[in-house]
Amino acid sequence: MTPEEFRQAGHALIDWIADYRADLEQRPVRAQVKPGEIRANFPRQAPEEAAGATQLLQDLESKIVPGITQVQHPMHYGWFPSNASLASALGDIASAGLGTLGISWESCPAATELEEVVCDWLRQLTGLSEAWQGCIQDTASTSCLTALLLARERASNFSQNRGGLQGQQQALLVYTTEEAHSSVVKAALLAGFGEHNLRRVEMDPDTRAMCVSSLAQLVAGDIEAGFIPAAVVASTGSTGVTAFDPIAEIAAITAQHGIWLHVDAAMAGSAMLLPECRHLWEGVEAADSIAWNPHKWMGTILDCSLLYVRDVQHMVRVMSTNPSYLRSTVDDEVKQYRDWGIPLGRRFRALKLWYHLGIDGIDSIRARLRRDLDNARWFAGQVSQTENWQVLAPVKLQTVCIRHQPTGLEGDALDKHTLAWVNAINQSGEAFMSPSILDGRWMVRVSIGVEATTREHVETLWKLIQRRAQDVAAVD
Amino acid sequence: MTPEEFRQAGHALIDWIADYRADLEQRPVRAQVKPGEIRANFPRQAPEEAAGATQLLQDLESKIVPGITQVQHPMHYGWFPSNASLASALGDIASAGLGTLGISWESCPAATELEEVVCDWLRQLTGLSEAWQGCIQDTASTSCLTALLLARERASNFSQNRGGLQGQQQALLVYTTEEAHSSVVKAALLAGFGEHNLRRVEMDPDTRAMCVSSLAQLVAGDIEAGFIPAAVVASTGSTGVTAFDPIAEIAAITAQHGIWLHVDAAMAGSAMLLPECRHLWEGVEAADSIAWNPHKWMGTILDCSLLYVRDVQHMVRVMSTNPSYLRSTVDDEVKQYRDWGIPLGRRFRALKLWYHLGIDGIDSIRARLRRDLDNARWFAGQVSQTENWQVLAPVKLQTVCIRHQPTGLEGDALDKHTLAWVNAINQSGEAFMSPSILDGRWMVRVSIGVEATTREHVETLWKLIQRRAQDVAAVD
Repeated sequence: MTPEEFRQAGHALIDWIADYRADLEQRPVRAQVKPGEIRANFPRQAPEEAAGATQLLQDLESKIVPGITQVQHPMHYGWFPSNASLASALGDIASAGLGTLGISWESCPAATELEEVVCDWLRQLTGLSEAWQGCIQDTASTSCLTALLLARERASNFSQNRGGLQGQQQALLVYTTEEAHSSVVKAALLAGFGEHNLRRVEMDPDTRAMCVSSLAQLVAGDIEAGFIPAAVVASTGSTGVTAFDPIAEIAAITAQHGIWLHVDAAMAGSAMLLPECRHLWEGVEAADSIAWNPHKWMGTILDCSLLYVRDVQHMVRVMSTNPSYLRSTVDDEVKQYRDWGIPLGRRFRALKLWYHLGIDGIDSIRARLRRDLDNARWFAGQVSQTENWQVLAPVKLQTVCIRHQPTGLEGDALDKHTLAWVNAINQSGEAFMSPSILDGRWMVRVSIGVEATTREHVETLWKLIQRRAQDVAAVD
Repeated sequence: MTPEEFRQAGHALIDWIADYRADLEQRPVRAQVKPGEIRANFPRQAPEEAAGATQLLQDLESKIVPGITQVQHPMHYGWFPSNASLASALGDIASAGLGTLGISWESCPAATELEEVVCDWLRQLTGLSEAWQGCIQDTASTSCLTALLLARERASNFSQNRGGLQGQQQALLVYTTEEAHSSVVKAALLAGFGEHNLRRVEMDPDTRAMCVSSLAQLVAGDIEAGFIPAAVVASTGSTGVTAFDPIAEIAAITAQHGIWLHVDAAMAGSAMLLPECRHLWEGVEAADSIAWNPHKWMGTILDCSLLYVRDVQHMVRVMSTNPSYLRSTVDDEVKQYRDWGIPLGRRFRALKLWYHLGIDGIDSIRARLRRDLDNARWFAGQVSQTENWQVLAPVKLQTVCIRHQPTGLEGDALDKHTLAWVNAINQSGEAFMSPSILDGRWMVRVSIGVEATTREHVETLWKLIQRRAQDVAAVD
């Protein structure tokens, strides 16, 4: 494809995207397709002939878009806000157009240095001190795995240079709660710690925050038993019920015993752009690593997870690769982000943060986050004031966990009712929410915060929820 | 940013990209900036005010582009071809415009199913049997780490469900060669095996291919000593000298002992699109996993590494996460790619492969690869016919390793001479190659295969190299 052909096809694609985003609200929220339906739109054999850009754009509309769950839709309240602001999308488009290669500073100095710049801007905007240095990872899962690898190597005094975890005499332990994101356990298992060396710390039954006295007891007992507490992963805004582990109190324990403290703020890191929310991670300066995802609520298009560490030398020592064909004469003067994570080759992801801040601006981003907090408070108020409806967990940010419990409905029958009304709404395409299990029973997470979601949309949702819950209760 | 504002800014950006790509040859290949120079173009404090799309586009040109090493430049012969074909860039732009969320089939059925489709197309196009199923990872580093985690769990009978590697009685071993990519050792260390449990298998001194008798001896000795050989990582086209380990003979050993065989074809996988090259990985059907990067020579824009496995159940069992808020009613009928790798959230990367094949077409891609093979043969022929010039390794594909050795120049003086002429060229911005160490001495890798590189460019390079080597020899 020549630059001139690209110009023509690119203009057509930009127009299509602008129309698509403008008309999004007309589409069903959840994709209305069955398993295999999208796959069947395509030939099983690799095409021998090129189709051309015009045909592909038609296919994109007719064969692919029906298979997209519209997470940018204002009636999307599922999982978490996965905002892909058009400002940040433009930065991603610039990255695609440039076609850079990020394997070293030398292969693209601008990609390294703009990443330094925007990571430091975000550090300041979330109120972190100059002690932190950041980089962009793809997701919080990868950030957490990286943090646990750093913890493993610190606690084992660089076992990777000897027999690895296989030579470990005293078992290294990882502490977290059941409320932590599934990626925390996955990261601990992939890092080789083993299920038997994971400790689930007790939680406060109301807030599902980590119980610090339980952590202290576990750690003391484990040390006495000859184990080595290696890492605590604390949640700042869990996925389930937006639980906030008490960072300052946890940090007092980790500091005392030299345990690595990783703060997983994947979802709630966006809230730290608001000074009035920062009490929620009070004590964070005493952590060893922090990860949060601008690609969630803040709205920088996926993939964009920020990982901050205090001890950069340790990071580089654990993650470094330095073959001769990657060396250059300036290695001592520059950052080599390949030594800050797993992949060697990296895209120019700093551009989307730069575009997002440069076009939308931090003031409008903050105003939108505050709007969402208001909407969540309003919605929670409506639910809790209405008979037979409950808000099941403290509403710390923009997620509201709810249940409809008609009189006399309990146990499995209640579960069936909950799934019936939420699935009816999800299947209709009118709105989408995530059913989720809390203390063994199904409830519904209403995660407010899509860029396009206004108060009117939340009002519409509340009416819709009540109507559907009544409908299914009538036939229960 | 509204869709209408996006439309306007998007058209301006597309025009800029088309011009940028068309005029690329006018720019220096290697960025002509010093460490810190790009960073100094930006304020240290996060901007309070939005700059706007017009200003950003001006800044992109004036503040960022000077810091880009032009790997799409026809005179770029460094590292490896990192082609970002405009056809595939268009697919990445579509992905940015759609703003999808890939955390489950349900969150975007089209992203899952188009990935199935294109991975299967590429399977067919590289001549692999139906036994293989693939997915898209970011890089070969991540693919290799994933493969070694699968190997670890198979050899340890799922130690992650018990004490992890910490409970491992008999040490698990990983075998590879010094010629393997640096990411192989990095992956083995991150997976927890430990440096002492890595075996560097001897190589054929001429081809630097893995010596199979040495592998057999090592494996037999290690088993006798009570160790467990867990994985062999074989290179199909190493980064250094394009070495090809003998897959069929290695597979005979791994099959006999139940060792996981991972084939790292990051660079040379593209060559397997050509039937006449497939003898280079003969026996690959007996491997357990294969990774190769369309984002290298084939030219699908980074990030796009394909990881194929035979035992999908094993993959999912090792990498699975299944919290309640991600479950859906169709889980048994669909692929959940979150269980095929480390990250939970995934971009819609299948689009760029689909666009690449759909616009450029496989015939033109194959023709371009053959052109590059021809150019490499021509170049190697010129070098080897010229006095004092040597081709240092067999030219199996498109990389030619060369050295200029004027009569009487040896040892450190030869190293100094090599670095002098290659650095002079690299610093000038006229062309770029990678100096690299072979058997303790510097040589120069000339990696041919940028989409824009024609025979004329290679002729120009050969003249340039000879001139600069003469120039620096005169002052040595």
